[in-house]
Amino acid sequence: PNLSPLPRTPPTPRDPWATLSPTRTLPCPPRPVQKAELVRLSQTLLHVPALHWVVVEDAASPSALVGGVLAASGVSFTHLSAETPPELRGGPGAPSWLFPRGAEQRNRALRWLRDTRRPDEPGVVYFADDDNTYSLRLFEEMRSTRGVSVWPVGLVGGLRLERPLVAGGRVVGFHTGWRPERPFPLDMAGFAVGLRLLLAHPRARFDPRAERGFLESSFLGGLVTPGQLEPRADNCTQVGVWGVLGGFGGGLGGLGGFGGW
Amino acid sequence: PNLSPLPRTPPTPRDPWATLSPTRTLPCPPRPVQKAELVRLSQTLLHVPALHWVVVEDAASPSALVGGVLAASGVSFTHLSAETPPELRGGPGAPSWLFPRGAEQRNRALRWLRDTRRPDEPGVVYFADDDNTYSLRLFEEMRSTRGVSVWPVGLVGGLRLERPLVAGGRVVGFHTGWRPERPFPLDMAGFAVGLRLLLAHPRARFDPRAERGFLESSFLGGLVTPGQLEPRADNCTQVGVWGVLGGFGGGLGGLGGFGGW
Repeated sequence: PNLSPLPRTPPTPRDPWATLSPTRTLPCPPRPVQKAELVRLSQTLLHVPALHWVVVEDAASPSALVGGVLAASGVSFTHLSAETPPELRGGPGAPSWLFPRGAEQRNRALRWLRDTRRPDEPGVVYFADDDNTYSLRLFEEMRSTRGVSVWPVGLVGGLRLERPLVAGGRVVGFHTGWRPERPFPLDMAGFAVGLRLLLAHPRARFDPRAERGFLESSFLGGLVTPGQLEPRADNCTQVGVWGVLGGFGGGLGGLGGFGGW
Repeated sequence: PNLSPLPRTPPTPRDPWATLSPTRTLPCPPRPVQKAELVRLSQTLLHVPALHWVVVEDAASPSALVGGVLAASGVSFTHLSAETPPELRGGPGAPSWLFPRGAEQRNRALRWLRDTRRPDEPGVVYFADDDNTYSLRLFEEMRSTRGVSVWPVGLVGGLRLERPLVAGGRVVGFHTGWRPERPFPLDMAGFAVGLRLLLAHPRARFDPRAERGFLESSFLGGLVTPGQLEPRADNCTQVGVWGVLGGFGGGLGGLGGFGGW
């Protein structure tokens, strides 16, 4: 009863293209497990009409392994690279969460958009990670994004679910299991940005020195206020993206009564 | 150079349907992570022409959660259940590898095939797990299966790669990191069976009391000899399926020079 049927044929997109930038920091050289995850993500994206995939590796130059997966995928793509500076990478013994991951790579994707897109070009930008699972319906939800749209994300942050709280069609708060004082307590998988808004704010970017958990806020704070967020997914009651359980250590608190696609 | 391009439009299938039975033992009730994995697998299978998906849960009856994912997926499916008997389940403290997983469920899928298919019906049967990654090309490779076809599997058994060794177009041995004395040292993801061969051997089944690692052999031994295996994937030199790194504990030995889709 809580499972809405997914349409077999997605509706005609309102916007001619959407851009996705999966920028999970790939080790250099990429390992076979990354190849498998890229293959799997590409099979998801191949179902999405009018999509362009921007892939940014954490490397001095794009690798043949990733390039081969992209070329074979059938998905329209752009393959870039941006190396994380050594001072932000941490040493061999440094914990992986010391600095936010993927900031340089996402900023490279933003630069590509600013370099290649017209200011009035329609489109929606979403930051996808290759180890998440995406409902096909999620991509249809985000097509109508004007400013910044938001929705729940399953299995992140030590909770079963993180989501914006909506009243009267507006975001009035956030359900999150971790540091609720963050300006935008949202996972990277939980929002999309209208391309025109992004291009109208040429300085908006991810802060590679942001405190842990504040990477999303460092970017979104340059674009909107929390009250301007546009709820999607039936007022943020449906789950269309699932992340892997990260190292946040929290328990799996039950949040009954939620649906999902 | 080692990445063959994947055709955007798969070739017309030679056989009218293929059956896949992902029978990873699902906890009862299924948890959200299983839902995400089923969603992701369904997006892969939705690309495969002429496919029928048989899903068997380890439960007394099929669950609404899994049924909802299947109904929304757009993939042709049959939803069944088969409960693992308590004496084969192991107690709360028993190690998960004490008994082979998924034997009852795969046998239920075999019974469904024997109950519903005509003896001369063409088709190919493959046992898919929802935590593996499948190249779309793999499904085209297996369509021509007459008896039992085989190919490499990445990231299993403590090696980067397990694969049959081929000489003169025939399987002459196996590269495996674990118990090479097994009659068929193959992962469940590394073979497919022609439906007619299966239906001609009504007693072939998975032995739920098989020793660890011998589940595949218990089934294949009732169908063929190792010398009759049909190599696919360019004489077993291309990787089209990747499993997760299991608990076998081995290191990641490098196996250079291998291609993959």
